[in-house]
Parts: sequence; structure tokens; C-alpha cells
Amino acid sequence: MKLKIAVLPGDGIGPEVVRQAIKVINVISKKFGHEVEIKEGIVGGIAIDNFGDPLPEETWKICEESDAILLGAVGGPKWDNLPGDKRPEKALLRLRSGFNLFANIRPIPIFDELIFSSPIKEDYLKGVDFVIVRELTGGLYFGKPKETRIENGEEVAIDTMIYRASEIRRIAHVAFRMAQKRKKKVTSVDKANILECSRLWRKIVEEVSKEYIDVTLEHMYVDNCAMQIVRNPKQFDVILTENTFGDILSDEAAIITGSIGMLPSASLGETKKGLYEPIHGSAPDIAGQNIANPIATILSVALMFRYSFDLENEAKLIENSVRKILSLGYFTKDLFNNNPYAKKLVSTEEMGDLICSAIEGGA
Amino acid sequence: MKLKIAVLPGDGIGPEVVRQAIKVINVISKKFGHEVEIKEGIVGGIAIDNFGDPLPEETWKICEESDAILLGAVGGPKWDNLPGDKRPEKALLRLRSGFNLFANIRPIPIFDELIFSSPIKEDYLKGVDFVIVRELTGGLYFGKPKETRIENGEEVAIDTMIYRASEIRRIAHVAFRMAQKRKKKVTSVDKANILECSRLWRKIVEEVSKEYIDVTLEHMYVDNCAMQIVRNPKQFDVILTENTFGDILSDEAAIITGSIGMLPSASLGETKKGLYEPIHGSAPDIAGQNIANPIATILSVALMFRYSFDLENEAKLIENSVRKILSLGYFTKDLFNNNPYAKKLVSTEEMGDLICSAIEGGA
Ligand SMILES: [Mg+2]
Ligand SMILES: [Mg+2]
Repeated sequence: MKLKIAVLPGDGIGPEVVRQAIKVINVISKKFGHEVEIKEGIVGGIAIDNFGDPLPEETWKICEESDAILLGAVGGPKWDNLPGDKRPEKALLRLRSGFNLFANIRPIPIFDELIFSSPIKEDYLKGVDFVIVRELTGGLYFGKPKETRIENGEEVAIDTMIYRASEIRRIAHVAFRMAQKRKKKVTSVDKANILECSRLWRKIVEEVSKEYIDVTLEHMYVDNCAMQIVRNPKQFDVILTENTFGDILSDEAAIITGSIGMLPSASLGETKKGLYEPIHGSAPDIAGQNIANPIATILSVALMFRYSFDLENEAKLIENSVRKILSLGYFTKDLFNNNPYAKKLVSTEEMGDLICSAIEGGA
Repeated sequence: MKLKIAVLPGDGIGPEVVRQAIKVINVISKKFGHEVEIKEGIVGGIAIDNFGDPLPEETWKICEESDAILLGAVGGPKWDNLPGDKRPEKALLRLRSGFNLFANIRPIPIFDELIFSSPIKEDYLKGVDFVIVRELTGGLYFGKPKETRIENGEEVAIDTMIYRASEIRRIAHVAFRMAQKRKKKVTSVDKANILECSRLWRKIVEEVSKEYIDVTLEHMYVDNCAMQIVRNPKQFDVILTENTFGDILSDEAAIITGSIGMLPSASLGETKKGLYEPIHGSAPDIAGQNIANPIATILSVALMFRYSFDLENEAKLIENSVRKILSLGYFTKDLFNNNPYAKKLVSTEEMGDLICSAIEGGA
């Protein structure tokens, strides 16, 4: 298979973690006989510095011509005082809206070797494995009117939560299709006892569920879900939710893993094209020191093979290789200290090489 | 001091837990020389059965004439199929809006004897003690338009998040005044990078903070706060937030205590009148068996003495008496099993009596 991949290293630790991910792309492709065409694009703060634009035309074209996009991280203190629409983060929003990537996928895996660093007790975590499917382009964050006006002599601020049936339907399909390939359960999260948007959400999700008779659907209120993610995370397979609730719940879920530096994400649309990136930021304080953890970016590559290329075996081998290297006691600095499983402290480069050799060895 | 208290036992376990709370009110008042006038009102499902109204006129009058209201719990499966505005829960909404109770106060105390039942590791919990101040009558849950309409042949649902400067100002004052009597820190939670309401929220909270120079103010995004409540709950003193975010965060925070059956709440307004209730529900499955845990209701009485009567010593003595009884190993059924501190299983009545004698003994 021919794999056309756009790679956007970005700022801070972006370039060094992406470099490891490129190694992984090359090794896994060679092993499975895929032809890879990687084109690198400039994005974020460095693109602002060089082209006055966080997403230059040339980078957009590279992304447009590719089947999938891998992004490192954007932003840093240098660009923090720019106005909102000139900020490095704007590149992400433009990629998402430009390619209509309405589904944000956040897997919540538990690595036994990292439970020590989770705030949650071990019994509650062992065996946890779920995915949050968050609607990314609608709802309260984008609805109009969004304004502050003067009424009766005082300021009044307004935001609008708005969902069209079709927006709900398409994200529901993403969640149900995902559940079919997993544990066959969708938990749809809303506040249908209070919100109109949630009532429509629930109705459309019910309709869509009829097309997936092998998948169990349950509904949960968002406040209860915030509780259940801590109380009993094992109950979940696929959590489906709207934009604002997903923003809150996905960060809450991330922390229970004890390993934010390990978490990948995908943003998907109606086509196979997707944007893949670690959830961690650009971490400018440790950039260029060869100590950053590249695993979140490497696991984002696994998601790319799974969702954009439908290459499940390749995705699994990448994931198993990461698990193997951790089980052997290799850790980067962020996860080495106090880790009862730690045997050898490795650099960013070394971690990339170790995972590549695990892939070559079939993990 | 003369204390005029309306007591609304309600449904399920409401009456039996409230009975213990009344004992506590009487004992603490006797000890400190206060004159108590308690009037009981009928509320919730039982009021629907008897008067066709979850909040009959007579009950409303009792509440109106009192300085504070203690409520047990309302609702149960018997009334679950009634239309929304006839439901038992409607009584709560009418009390809150009728007395303009815009501030919901949710203390998050940690009892060492109950850490065993928390999903969170002990190190993260020891010493945690914060309060969530949630705006209760504005924002997304009440804003208009709130409707579903047809646009271009498909359903479109709309909810409106709206905040007036004055609504933000009054709840901010509640939080800062509370922080002054505590650890002198307010964490204001918003999503000011995206929402207009949050930007106005942040601006007004900043303004109000200038009147409280002894209190430190910090701002936190809601998704980060959902993470921090699990990752480092010790950092908080008073969390101030709007309605929807508060709904989600207060339930998340409740679960980390390991003891939802122990948590009280208060709903306050501009005057001293407040509504006090346990956060647990009516638990119809265990009602009438003398096994329910009355502590959340008793701790709600402590909040009543603190906030409606400004009787801090009385409030503290109630709280210390609860802590003393737990430290002696007495637990109701919900917290007895697997509890390493448990020595004697006690009934609802016995727990009430034990706490009363601890109060009499000065705890
Ligand atoms: Mg977020
Ligand atoms: Mg709630």
C-alpha cells in the first residue's frame, strides 16, 4: 500500500518526538511492505517567525495532498502575546475546520508500568481501556451569537450551544463503528434532563444505534460521567459526547492514566484523512535536550495506521512494541523516577530506536 | 438566639435522616442556650400524593417564615413518570428560585476513616479540604432561547449560556467571603480562552477580588480543573464556578471523598436564609429500615449554623462530633464493610444518638 503522510514537527519538543515517529513509520512500513511518501511542512510558531502565518500555504498544500497528517506540537512563550487569530494554535483550528475533522478520538489506555504515577488506586485501573469520541467542531465553543453586550446598563455575555441533527448523526456513526471493533458498547454522555441540545443528541444517537444491533448503547448524564470516570473507569468502552463535555471529560480521563506524556489523539472526518498528534504540548522548557518522551507521538502513528490506512496489524504491532519496551524497564526521564518498573533511563532517540527494534523483532 | 427552622423531610430515607438532624438541632441549641422553633412541612412525592403539588402552599409559607430550611430528600420510582413540572424535584427548583438562592455550596471534606473507600490514593487525599461555590440560577441551564426548531429540513437544538455582570458579581462575593474565613484562596474556573461568558466572568471576578486583598485569586480552565481535582486536590480552598461547570466538577469532587453518603450542601442567596440538604438522594430501596446514614444531613445542619445563623462554634462542634464518632469506629451499614476503622455497626437512630452525646460531651 502507498502511504502519503504529511509531517508537521512544529515547536518545542515537536521536532524531536516527531523524528522518532518518522523512524517508526519507516520501520513498520518496511516490515509490512508499504511504500511511504513523507513530506514535511512547517507549522506553528516557527511558521509565524518564517512566513508570518502559523499555517503557510505550502504546508496546507502538503496536507491536502496527503492521506494523513502527523503533528508534533505548536506554541511556546515566544508567541503567547500574539492576538488570538495569529497564535500558533490557530494552525490546528484551521486544519480541523479546513479538512472538516469533526471527531476527536482520545484513547485512554492503562500501562501497568505507569499505574504508580496515577492518583487512582491500582484495583480501579487494571484492565481499563476506553476511547472518548468527542464532537469537535460544533456546540458551545462555536455557536453564534457569541458576544458581550450592554443591557440595562450592565454587561451581559452570551454563548450559544447549537447542534444540528446531521452533526450529531455523523459523530454518532464514528462512535458506533469504533465500538464494533472494540468491546461493543457506547456510552453517550449528555445532560438531557436540562438541555435541548442533549435531548436532540439523545434522540439522534438512539436512531443511529438501530443500525448497529451488535453494539449496546447506554446514556449517562455528564455530571455522573465525571464521577464514573474516577469511580469505575472499567465500565467504559466508547464514550460519545459533544464538544464542551468532551473537553472536560477527556482531560479528566487523561489524568487517571498517570501518564499524560503517553497519550495520542486523532481528529477524523467523513473521509479517511485524519490529523494525529500527542495530547501533550510543546514543552519548551525541555526542548532540544533529547529527554522528551516520544511515545505519545509514536502511539499517534499507531492510530494513523488504524484509522487512516485501515492497517490494524501494523497499529497493533506499534502498540505492542511500546508495551514491550516499557515492560523491559526502559523509560524516559518523565517516567523514570520513583517508577518501580524502571531499569534503564533512556533518551528520546534511544526510546525511538528501542521501539523500532521491537517492531523489527515482531514485538 | 432564636432559631426559626423549616424542616422538610420529604421522601424515601428523608424522614429518618432528618429525624436525627432534628435531634442534633435540639441538642446543640440546648447546649448553647438558643431557642429553637422547628416547623415541619410536607414536600416532594408525598406532597404530590396528598396535595397534588410537590411544594404545597402551606409548606411554602413555613419556609417563608423561617430563617433556614432543612430538606431530607425528594423523589422515588413512584413519581418518575410524571411530567417534568409535576415531579418531586420541582419543589427544589421552586424553593431555590423563590428565595433567590443563587449560590450552591458543596464542601469536600476528607475523613481519614473513609479514605479506604475512595478511588484515589491516600497520599493525594490526606489533608484535602475545599469548598465548591457554584452559581445555581444562571448560565446554560436557564438561558433563552432554549428550543429545537427545523432549519433546512432538519432539527436544530439551541441552548443559551448567558451571564449578567451582576449575577457574576454576587456569586463572586460569596466565594471571597468564604475564602476569608478559610485558607484565603479562590480558584475561579472558566473557559475564558473560548467563551464570552467566561471572559466576562473572569473580568468581574478580578474586579471583586480587589475588595478582598487578603484573598489570593487564581484562574483555571475548566478542563484543567477536572484534571487537577484528581491530580492534586490539596491545592484548592474555594473553587468558584458557573452553573454547568459546577454541576460537573462538584460531582467529580464528591467521588474523591469516598463517601457520597457523608456530603452536605447549602444553597444561599443575598440574605441569611438558606436551604440545607444532603447531596445523596432519597434511596427508596433502603427507606424505613433504620440503616441509612444520617451524617450528610447532620453535616448540613452544621452548615446551617455556620451560614444562616453565623454560629461558627456550634457548626464546628457538630462537625467535630461527627469526626469523633467515626474515629471511635462507629459506622452505618454503607461504610462498615471492608472499613479498616470499623468497630461497631450502628443504625440510623444509634448514629444520631451517638453524635448527640458527643455534642453534649463537647466532642
Ligand atoms: Mg481540553
Ligand atoms: Mg450534578
